Amino acid sequence: MARKGFVHVGNKVSAIIHKTLISRMMKNTAVLLVSCPDQKGLVASIANFLLAHNANILHADQHQDAELNLFLMRVEWDLNGFSLPLEEFAAAFEPIASKHEMTWRLAESARKPRLAIFVSKFDHCLADLLYRYQSGELHCEIPIILSNHEDTRWLADTYRIPFQFIAVLKNAKEEAEKIQSTILHRERINFIVLARYMQVLSPEFIRQYENRIINIHHSFLPAFHGAKPYHRAFERGVKLIGATSHYVTETLDDGPIIEQDVSRISHRDSLEDLIHKGADLEKIVLSRAVKWHIDNRVLVYANKTVVFD
Amino acid sequence: MARKGFVHVGNKVSAIIHKTLISRMMKNTAVLLVSCPDQKGLVASIANFLLAHNANILHADQHQDAELNLFLMRVEWDLNGFSLPLEEFAAAFEPIASKHEMTWRLAESARKPRLAIFVSKFDHCLADLLYRYQSGELHCEIPIILSNHEDTRWLADTYRIPFQFIAVLKNAKEEAEKIQSTILHRERINFIVLARYMQVLSPEFIRQYENRIINIHHSFLPAFHGAKPYHRAFERGVKLIGATSHYVTETLDDGPIIEQDVSRISHRDSLEDLIHKGADLEKIVLSRAVKWHIDNRVLVYANKTVVFD
Amino acid sequence: MARKGFVHVGNKVSAIIHKTLISRMMKNTAVLLVSCPDQKGLVASIANFLLAHNANILHADQHQDAELNLFLMRVEWDLNGFSLPLEEFAAAFEPIASKHEMTWRLAESARKPRLAIFVSKFDHCLADLLYRYQSGELHCEIPIILSNHEDTRWLADTYRIPFQFIAVLKNAKEEAEKIQSTILHRERINFIVLARYMQVLSPEFIRQYENRIINIHHSFLPAFHGAKPYHRAFERGVKLIGATSHYVTETLDDGPIIEQDVSRISHRDSLEDLIHKGADLEKIVLSRAVKWHIDNRVLVYANKTVVFD
Amino acid sequence: MARKGFVHVGNKVSAIIHKTLISRMMKNTAVLLVSCPDQKGLVASIANFLLAHNANILHADQHQDAELNLFLMRVEWDLNGFSLPLEEFAAAFEPIASKHEMTWRLAESARKPRLAIFVSKFDHCLADLLYRYQSGELHCEIPIILSNHEDTRWLADTYRIPFQFIAVLKNAKEEAEKIQSTILHRERINFIVLARYMQVLSPEFIRQYENRIINIHHSFLPAFHGAKPYHRAFERGVKLIGATSHYVTETLDDGPIIEQDVSRISHRDSLEDLIHKGADLEKIVLSRAVKWHIDNRVLVYANKTVVFD
Repeated sequence: MARKGFVHVGNKVSAIIHKTLISRMMKNTAVLLVSCPDQKGLVASIANFLLAHNANILHADQHQDAELNLFLMRVEWDLNGFSLPLEEFAAAFEPIASKHEMTWRLAESARKPRLAIFVSKFDHCLADLLYRYQSGELHCEIPIILSNHEDTRWLADTYRIPFQFIAVLKNAKEEAEKIQSTILHRERINFIVLARYMQVLSPEFIRQYENRIINIHHSFLPAFHGAKPYHRAFERGVKLIGATSHYVTETLDDGPIIEQDVSRISHRDSLEDLIHKGADLEKIVLSRAVKWHIDNRVLVYANKTVVFD
Repeated sequence: MARKGFVHVGNKVSAIIHKTLISRMMKNTAVLLVSCPDQKGLVASIANFLLAHNANILHADQHQDAELNLFLMRVEWDLNGFSLPLEEFAAAFEPIASKHEMTWRLAESARKPRLAIFVSKFDHCLADLLYRYQSGELHCEIPIILSNHEDTRWLADTYRIPFQFIAVLKNAKEEAEKIQSTILHRERINFIVLARYMQVLSPEFIRQYENRIINIHHSFLPAFHGAKPYHRAFERGVKLIGATSHYVTETLDDGPIIEQDVSRISHRDSLEDLIHKGADLEKIVLSRAVKWHIDNRVLVYANKTVVFD
Repeated sequence: MARKGFVHVGNKVSAIIHKTLISRMMKNTAVLLVSCPDQKGLVASIANFLLAHNANILHADQHQDAELNLFLMRVEWDLNGFSLPLEEFAAAFEPIASKHEMTWRLAESARKPRLAIFVSKFDHCLADLLYRYQSGELHCEIPIILSNHEDTRWLADTYRIPFQFIAVLKNAKEEAEKIQSTILHRERINFIVLARYMQVLSPEFIRQYENRIINIHHSFLPAFHGAKPYHRAFERGVKLIGATSHYVTETLDDGPIIEQDVSRISHRDSLEDLIHKGADLEKIVLSRAVKWHIDNRVLVYANKTVVFD
Repeated sequence: MARKGFVHVGNKVSAIIHKTLISRMMKNTAVLLVSCPDQKGLVASIANFLLAHNANILHADQHQDAELNLFLMRVEWDLNGFSLPLEEFAAAFEPIASKHEMTWRLAESARKPRLAIFVSKFDHCLADLLYRYQSGELHCEIPIILSNHEDTRWLADTYRIPFQFIAVLKNAKEEAEKIQSTILHRERINFIVLARYMQVLSPEFIRQYENRIINIHHSFLPAFHGAKPYHRAFERGVKLIGATSHYVTETLDDGPIIEQDVSRISHRDSLEDLIHKGADLEKIVLSRAVKWHIDNRVLVYANKTVVFD
């Protein structure tokens, strides 16, 4: 019966998603991300390879880290007219890749990555992500929302996304992570977003999703890492508050930063005002990071990110 | 039956609103807004009046416009212990007000203003306002959403707010406005927000709600007033896009500006990117303006605003 | 002979300063800064006192810290027509001050505070301050520049400000500070600006100028306090760099923050780019803090600042 | 005798410039800027050409304008080891250029462009540019400053740059421009910066330096183009003020925008405050545009700019 109540919403949502799907499917491109030791001839090698298969390059961007002698590249091309079937790409590209010791990855814009959102009680980031997802701004699937609280179930219901409550009890985190992992595998999840999820994940769990778990921390890292950053910002008397989106690593709040931003505050702002203004920051910063990750714009090296724009 | 489907949501929403109500009701304050010709003794007059009735002033802020010789003040005090019943305030304050030729207005924080939202097809500002309303950030009632399209009804349903479709046909705007006015009066509406409402209101309609209709324009006014500002910004090759929230006056996009902000763009941003980035700006700028209006922080003079922070 | 060369510059500078002096002298105001335990009737007390002496209030601003039950106020009034000679102010105000346990301070806009600038090798902040001083933007006297290097002497010469080289040798900081203190007393210095001065001052020295030594730190504090903040920001891969101006306390980089700001960077920015972009930030942030200090807009409490705008 | 007075300054300046020269001369690179109709194989063509001559590419960036079917590219490579003498570049590159209908230009980082600054009375932008020039931040020569007033001669003297006063009388602009042009040719000027130069240049003059005259306008264009933008911003009650740097075209304040930025203001800011805050914006925005122009990062098309970062 409950589902009945959402029929109108559901149809509306479906209609919008359908429209979006079509518009996105018309964007039929491939993205190649490469990192390797810097050397002469890399751009020519890649460009010639793509040209040989009749690729129409739409965007190409590269970055050299002179100190680490590293070359990083993102190239996107139209698949219309591309003469190499993507399932044969790896074999065909292999000689170039091994010659230049490349780490590389290929992504198709038409294939949407599958995202699992972890959330606790605060719902502003979740609400923002779901609205963007529904409006077609986030080009992904969201097959599951996992939470250690029931508070945000109504949002999942509104957008008709399965919601799974998994209690995380003291001294029983391992058990909870086992259940989480099972669900993530079952749903063939590609990446995870911690939308103000208030539990620390174990190193074992994190290693399964290296550079594929995006967190939002409510401070301008490295300032105020750890707990209660707004309280500490208020106490310290800073004039700007910040938010940071980063990939999760085994060291708390220390992973590669994807995006940061700040908002001005003054002595007139109470702690409650900081929390309200910060919530807006968190939403914007997290949604940018998620969007860039989905669009294959982020490359990690040396605990930093290159964000190709 | 459709209502049944929202039972869970409804309870959740009610619970949250209830929590908020309580927290807000504990904030039991009055706000006095004054403007008058500048002269000596104004601050003392007002402070003495309030002290005589045992007011505990929580915030006081004032502004002098030297050129226009104008004095503007906002003062907020705790009603606990205030010895003057608010229904007797006008009579008691009258001697001071008339002596100094004051224009003034009194507001109670416990009495929530009633807001009507006008919307067309774009739903991002509406979705943002409704989420903030539901989370307790906007201290108002929203008894009605009016639209000339059906597209956003699902959002109204989600948040259980009555939605009224009113067609606005060519050459029949007057008729539509009559229906709108009737509903606004019936619902005892205090102020209106145009959340990307794509119809121009008549001078007659606007006069009924002077300085009480808030619009969001998707440009940095006065640049790109009128239609299709993102298209024109894209064509002009600006390096920042903006959004402006202002009170509606009879001249299009020319009313007193409440808030503005901008976002950086580059040559890499397509027109579609501008529209996406702009949507985030519009939400933030409009929600700030609405919040300040509700909190009685905005005073209009000389087609400008003073925003007491 | 060397001075001869500056005759033209000197005349020009004099002319500009002269013009400014006149314009500033026409601004003949007093500023009263007050902090005390919050209680009813404070605004009325002060307003009545000023009114009794025929003050024309130009600006009044106040702040309450609810948690600490603290009241802070800044009020500025025109001295034209003010009937109380300022040398009698203290005696007249005393009853009110002691009744409310006020800490207070009175400043005359016509009396320019005397600033000593400390600098090492980097000259961008010094150059910026001197240009603003000369253009009349900083309403102060600068009788002396002290440096532990000779590198910036040319700037002091350009603006015709005495420059004193004082070597700060290892294990002889105490000796250097004695010489510095002697000069500061001789020049009747009111406040000190550390314009990228690369020596740590002793607690004894700092105590002499409590809340009167302004430092610029080239990071967004509390992130990257201590040495080489740009290097560490570069290594951490942050997406924004910052600068912080604060009063110096005995704990390094921990004093009350007056102003902060940030600039966006990307992976394309080298360490050298960070240093260049940061220099612009440092100049802006430091000059704002200095200006606000001169204008008596900054009040310190609980290791924070209130900046009345 | 007057020159004697600058000996110390002069030596200092020389020393700094010398140091900078050396550091810059070690950066021995070439930059190729290309624009042409978009088509397959462009990146491969250019990359292969450079590789054939043993170029070590340091940066490459490109942009496609899908609507106009335009391809734009900037590529920078190390000249150490580059086997093609630059005087033979044009002949060698010609076949590729004509095949793809390229408009292109080659620049050597070691060859500093020659800049003439035009200025009137306001000196903040001039002072800022000269300080950056002297500190080595602007990699150019400044052989001449031209002004229709004597006010800024002292700044030119300080930095030992020739200063030429040229009166611009009503009805005699043509005559003044003739003198200006003669000097510009004599000094082999590559580009011009209007550092708050308050005269409108004739179309004939502008055509001689197409996309090589950089202006700073003290508003967020297209808002408040023309005269007195701060006055008009103040009157309109905007909440942010802006500055815009653009190439000068025959239509006033309408040329391709290179950079823009804004600063927040409030009702507390007087017109004088706007002018002060705006001056800081103007300096930053103009200096960025000048730096990018010098570094050959700016390409103009369709009255817009691509700024390769």
